[in-house]
Amino acid sequence: MSGKNGFTIWFTGLPGAGKSTLAGLTHEALQARGVINVEVLDGDVVRTHLSKGLGYSKEDRDTNIRRIGWVCRLLTKHGVPTIAAAISPYRDLRGEVRKMVEEAGGSGSFIEVYVNCPLEECERRDPKGLYRKARSGEIKHFTGVSDAYEPPYAPEVVLHTDRESPEESVRKIITVLKKFGWI
Amino acid sequence: MSGKNGFTIWFTGLPGAGKSTLAGLTHEALQARGVINVEVLDGDVVRTHLSKGLGYSKEDRDTNIRRIGWVCRLLTKHGVPTIAAAISPYRDLRGEVRKMVEEAGGSGSFIEVYVNCPLEECERRDPKGLYRKARSGEIKHFTGVSDAYEPPYAPEVVLHTDRESPEESVRKIITVLKKFGWI
Repeated sequence: MSGKNGFTIWFTGLPGAGKSTLAGLTHEALQARGVINVEVLDGDVVRTHLSKGLGYSKEDRDTNIRRIGWVCRLLTKHGVPTIAAAISPYRDLRGEVRKMVEEAGGSGSFIEVYVNCPLEECERRDPKGLYRKARSGEIKHFTGVSDAYEPPYAPEVVLHTDRESPEESVRKIITVLKKFGWI
Repeated sequence: MSGKNGFTIWFTGLPGAGKSTLAGLTHEALQARGVINVEVLDGDVVRTHLSKGLGYSKEDRDTNIRRIGWVCRLLTKHGVPTIAAAISPYRDLRGEVRKMVEEAGGSGSFIEVYVNCPLEECERRDPKGLYRKARSGEIKHFTGVSDAYEPPYAPEVVLHTDRESPEESVRKIITVLKKFGWI
C-alpha cells in the first residue's frame, strides 16, 4: 500500500441505464474537489484491453468482471481512486469483486452504485441501438432482454436516472463519499 | 497523472534466466531505499488473473504481454513504481509495451532489463522442470527450445545471471534507476 487512501466506486445497471455517463460526471466532480488522480475503467474500453475474444456467456461475463475487479484492486491498493462502470449483472460476482478490493484497500474501500432505471426507459433510450438488435435476435445474451440482471440487495448508493437529474445523482454519490471520509 | 513519478521496470529473458528472482530482489532493494508502493507483476501470476485460457501461440503470447503492458501503463500513469517479469520473447511486442507506458508516464518511464543467461545454463537449472517437458515434446511452443526468443537490441540494463551474483545484478539496476532520477 502506498499510504494514501484508494477506493473503488463500482457502477452496475442495465445497458443504457446511464453508468458511463454518471461515471464520467463523478470523475469530473472528484476533479473539481481536487481529487485528480482518478482512473475510470469503462466496461467497453476494458473489454478491448483485457478481454478481447470473450463473449457474453455467464462464464465469459464472470471472467471479464473478475479482470476489471483485479485491476480495481491493484489501483485501490496503491491509493488510486478508481471508478468502474460495467453492467456486471450477477450479484455473486459483484460480491467477489467487493471482497477482492476490500482485501487490498480495507473495509469500506468499495462502494456499489446501483444505476436503477426501468428496462422500458433503457430500451426507449437505446443509445447504441443494442436493444433493437437484441429484440430482433441479432444479439444473443443481452442483459435485460435475453439474459438476467440481478439488482444489488444492499448497494451503498441507488440512483434513479429516469426521475432524477444527473446533478442529483452525482450529489448522492458525493454525499456517500463524504460520509465514508474519502473526500 | 498523480503528480508523483511512476515507472516500469520490465524484465525479459528465457525461462529459468532468473527474471522472477531478480524482480523480487529489485523490489526488496527499492523498499530498503524507502520506495514502498511498488507493484510486482509476475508473468505467471498475471496469466491466472488476466489471461486464463490463453495459450502460447504467437498471438496468445502477444495478447498476454499487451495486457500486462496495459496494467503497467495504468500503474505508471498513477505514480506507482511497477516491476514486470515475463519471458516476453518478441521484440516488437516489448517495443509496443514501452511505447504504451511512455505515453502515460513520459519519456524514460520504462526500462528494459535483459536477463541474459545462456540457454544451456537455463536448461541446467530448469527450476520448474519445463525444459525437460519441452525436450520430451510434452510442452509445445516453449521459448528457447521450440519457440523463438528475440534478445533486445538496446536494453537499458543487461544482466548476466550465469556469471554475476544476484547482488551485482541488483546493483546494476539500482545504478540505472539513480541515473534516471527515479530513486
